[in-house]
Amino acid sequence: MLKEAIYHRPKNEFAYAIDESTLHIRLKTKKNDVDKVKLIYGDPYDFHSEKKCWISSKKDMLFNGSDSLHDYWLVAVKPEHRRLRYGFLLENNNETLFYTEKGFYHEEPNDAGYYFCFPFLNKIDVFSPPEWVNNTVWYQIFPERFANGDPSIDPEGALPWGSTDPSPKNFFGGDFQGVIDHLDYLEDLGISGIYFTPIFKAYSNHKYDTIDYMEIDPQFGDKETFRELVKKCHEKGIRVMLDAVFNHSGFYFPQFQDVVEKGEKSKYKDWFHLKGFPVKTEYPANYDTFAYVPNMPKLNTENEEVKNYLLDVARYWVEEFDIDGWRLDVANEVDHVFWREFRNAVKSVKPDAYILGEIWHDSMPWLQGDQFDAVMNYPLTTAITEYFAKENITTSEFANAVTSVRNLYPETVNRVQFNLLGSHDTPRILTISNDNKDLVKLQMLVQFTSTGTPCIYYGDEIAMTGGQDPGCRKCMIWEEEKQDKEMLLFVKKLISLRKENKVLRSNESFSFIEASDSQNTITYSLKDETSEVLVLINNNDEKKVINIPESYQQRKVTNLWDSTENRLAETINVDPYSFFIFRIK
Amino acid sequence: MLKEAIYHRPKNEFAYAIDESTLHIRLKTKKNDVDKVKLIYGDPYDFHSEKKCWISSKKDMLFNGSDSLHDYWLVAVKPEHRRLRYGFLLENNNETLFYTEKGFYHEEPNDAGYYFCFPFLNKIDVFSPPEWVNNTVWYQIFPERFANGDPSIDPEGALPWGSTDPSPKNFFGGDFQGVIDHLDYLEDLGISGIYFTPIFKAYSNHKYDTIDYMEIDPQFGDKETFRELVKKCHEKGIRVMLDAVFNHSGFYFPQFQDVVEKGEKSKYKDWFHLKGFPVKTEYPANYDTFAYVPNMPKLNTENEEVKNYLLDVARYWVEEFDIDGWRLDVANEVDHVFWREFRNAVKSVKPDAYILGEIWHDSMPWLQGDQFDAVMNYPLTTAITEYFAKENITTSEFANAVTSVRNLYPETVNRVQFNLLGSHDTPRILTISNDNKDLVKLQMLVQFTSTGTPCIYYGDEIAMTGGQDPGCRKCMIWEEEKQDKEMLLFVKKLISLRKENKVLRSNESFSFIEASDSQNTITYSLKDETSEVLVLINNNDEKKVINIPESYQQRKVTNLWDSTENRLAETINVDPYSFFIFRIK
Repeated sequence: MLKEAIYHRPKNEFAYAIDESTLHIRLKTKKNDVDKVKLIYGDPYDFHSEKKCWISSKKDMLFNGSDSLHDYWLVAVKPEHRRLRYGFLLENNNETLFYTEKGFYHEEPNDAGYYFCFPFLNKIDVFSPPEWVNNTVWYQIFPERFANGDPSIDPEGALPWGSTDPSPKNFFGGDFQGVIDHLDYLEDLGISGIYFTPIFKAYSNHKYDTIDYMEIDPQFGDKETFRELVKKCHEKGIRVMLDAVFNHSGFYFPQFQDVVEKGEKSKYKDWFHLKGFPVKTEYPANYDTFAYVPNMPKLNTENEEVKNYLLDVARYWVEEFDIDGWRLDVANEVDHVFWREFRNAVKSVKPDAYILGEIWHDSMPWLQGDQFDAVMNYPLTTAITEYFAKENITTSEFANAVTSVRNLYPETVNRVQFNLLGSHDTPRILTISNDNKDLVKLQMLVQFTSTGTPCIYYGDEIAMTGGQDPGCRKCMIWEEEKQDKEMLLFVKKLISLRKENKVLRSNESFSFIEASDSQNTITYSLKDETSEVLVLINNNDEKKVINIPESYQQRKVTNLWDSTENRLAETINVDPYSFFIFRIK
Repeated sequence: MLKEAIYHRPKNEFAYAIDESTLHIRLKTKKNDVDKVKLIYGDPYDFHSEKKCWISSKKDMLFNGSDSLHDYWLVAVKPEHRRLRYGFLLENNNETLFYTEKGFYHEEPNDAGYYFCFPFLNKIDVFSPPEWVNNTVWYQIFPERFANGDPSIDPEGALPWGSTDPSPKNFFGGDFQGVIDHLDYLEDLGISGIYFTPIFKAYSNHKYDTIDYMEIDPQFGDKETFRELVKKCHEKGIRVMLDAVFNHSGFYFPQFQDVVEKGEKSKYKDWFHLKGFPVKTEYPANYDTFAYVPNMPKLNTENEEVKNYLLDVARYWVEEFDIDGWRLDVANEVDHVFWREFRNAVKSVKPDAYILGEIWHDSMPWLQGDQFDAVMNYPLTTAITEYFAKENITTSEFANAVTSVRNLYPETVNRVQFNLLGSHDTPRILTISNDNKDLVKLQMLVQFTSTGTPCIYYGDEIAMTGGQDPGCRKCMIWEEEKQDKEMLLFVKKLISLRKENKVLRSNESFSFIEASDSQNTITYSLKDETSEVLVLINNNDEKKVINIPESYQQRKVTNLWDSTENRLAETINVDPYSFFIFRIK
């Protein structure tokens, strides 16, 4: 057994509370190296006085998938007194090993002190993101480009809707009234949450260069219109999430302008990270910025005034306008202390608000219950697009990547991860997929059968195209004849399936049954306590015969797509770039 | 190269800020598998527009020791803009590998997005334990047993000092006046911090069953005596740390008595974790307790009233009596939310207070800068006693264990870890060592040449003995003729050496030069920026010839123990259970 590959460390994704009485324990071993793993566990204070040893039990761990190098194992336990010491019994044909905090043994250590420790399951430490998030389907709106409902507030020089391609600087007059006017469309689509990129007063068309965090940008409307928008969304069961750009302000943020003007005498000089005076606003600037952009001075969130200002902002839009969540821009460049206080501030006014960080990398340090509820799940995005759209990775590499993502964070986090195929920061999924709509559908299928909370980037549901920013920020197409109705129906169907079948979003047990490089087809199973769904995907430009695993043969199933009842045979023919989704009876 | 054994994950002990501009990056590889590791690093936003690639640099990583399975590597970098993307270039005779967040490659990835991410070094997130702790030598006092300075306040039935062995229930009348009376002794010994086990009003002799957290136990004195004690300590440059028993109260805590009496009608019913009424105080109790002890009801630290009460306690003794630190009893069974607020409360009244958790297991989740400064370093205690005192492990196993401990936490934590050879919870070190005083000296030598902050358990410096509690809680011996003066001189010498030689406590670079099982001798080196110390230990009951490594031969050295000047030869004779400690010139 390869000891060097075996890894466990309490807390984070390896030992965590899934609810107030249950712990999840995970283990990582070398791929195909260990046949069976049992958890050895007990209360630290249970001591057998005659045998002079710790009293423990054993429980089988479940195989939880493989990536390219490792196998993952998982088990749930309910310690009677909420205290746990535990270790692992690993078996293969050659060897039996005991793995504890103190190392590896061939004999079972009988002293509780040797074992790993989950000292106490305190309720308040249980990571409890809002329940509603897993049931939500998001729709991302870039407000300048969704719909122009009130031409009277168009910014100067606004172009006719869709009259030309988007550029970094042009405007088309999208606004809140436009969103309100199309709420029926969104309701009909079936989405239940809107994520708006920034709406606060700013100079640019994307509004990531905030001038005033307490004001709506006048090109979008006023506070009353926004209040009405949120109210109408809520009436339709649609939640609203705003974008918090707290890492940096815009150049025209008055506090920054004051510093530029007055230099060292400005009372806002500690609001930023200035390295000298006078302030030099050309590249390279003499203050910290987002990337190397002098127009985006980094805010000093360690400064009490700045912190209080931003926390006021965070509370204000929740308290006054009843928004349901914050998406945090460039979240990992802001200090952890700020985010801990941010969480307390937001949750104190709305305990079930959703706090979503924009982090493209491994985000465990922000997902321990004290900062964010979830992050934008770009690693899943990458796995999906690299396999289906770009064909850069093989079927097994895709399966490895998906398993790896699932084992990166606790299940509590996985359930509310924000799963996206694209955003205002990436080329559109149809464009990445070389305009192959069938490929887009397969990717959406995977997205909508993953645990977490899926988000549709506005217009993807009608097959809009567009390259890297600004290409992906075209005006939404409202002329029905130009919308792809087939794609729209497809997306509606996916949304309704996810709504009706809890197992699609909860998939507590997910496993790849087949993911072969030679076939380039995939079969995976989703299970929860009451049901199972089987997904079969043909990622080829030709028909494929997919084998049905023996244990599923002759099982009665419902084809969820067309509601037909079938009995599974030994194989099934799948059309090019097509799929089946069966509920096992 | 064994990919499965290679491990890195940002933050925790693998990537952390050592100060406001410097990051430490660590890596783990299979033992003896990799010859050379370079860090590949750069700013995430440095892009070469012509070559269309990320701009990065390379820097050698230093070998940072081995344990039984792995090698450890370390490097410090100062990212110009406090942002870092990084990966690793690993080389051995067979292979060159690039290791990034996305996995292993044979070609160097040129997209910053592939690399590991330390997004931003925000000053406020830098883990900054108090500077003074690394310079401190602690002395642990169990107040009932240190000295009886005021017989007028002896508890009823107190026995004459040292007249009999300690039992779980007897009293000898130790008190604050006794400590005050012996401060000159402590000053002469050279210690610079006292850690007191609990002093608050309680029923038992150990006082871990608190009745009133706001009152001094009358057997120790009153608040004025305590105030005088702290003041006199401070005048002598001695810090004072108290024991915070916040996991559970004592049975006679009035709030608990109220619940026992009034049951569901008690206004304190939510102060504990009650599972039913009436309250059943015999084993098994119907409320959560420490272990299974009905006399120690677990406090509900999630309850706002309890939290506020305990935070008031935490602030009170710092603000009113100027204590310098809190040692937190059973720290890992209390919730993280409480400890975060505890840290804020304590540091708000004394920013350089020391917060020390009693945790016997891996403690990384409490050492991320938001909770504790350090924990009691029992893993180091175990390594030392298992090797020297109990002879349960070999020399190489000892070296592996020490290296493992050093690589378990960031260096920022290591510098203030509380290194002890014993406490009121363990048999005395001399007793564990089968009364072999030379063995005790070797263990103290290792303790005092380790980074962190060493603590002497009262009486160990005069060679007191005693088994597991209550045996280890004997009355301090004050009759000079019964004190082991040779041991006392030895300890004084060690303390003064540690004070005078910064390298002994900072040892930023520590390495085992030799730790052979056949010889049962050890040579290790401690280095900092300006100096190096070589320690040679013979852990045998016979003389040994220890080889001097070639690079040290002919080097001029100062023998720190007797201040003689020497030139190192090829070998050196070391007496049984003896040592040399040389400063390299």
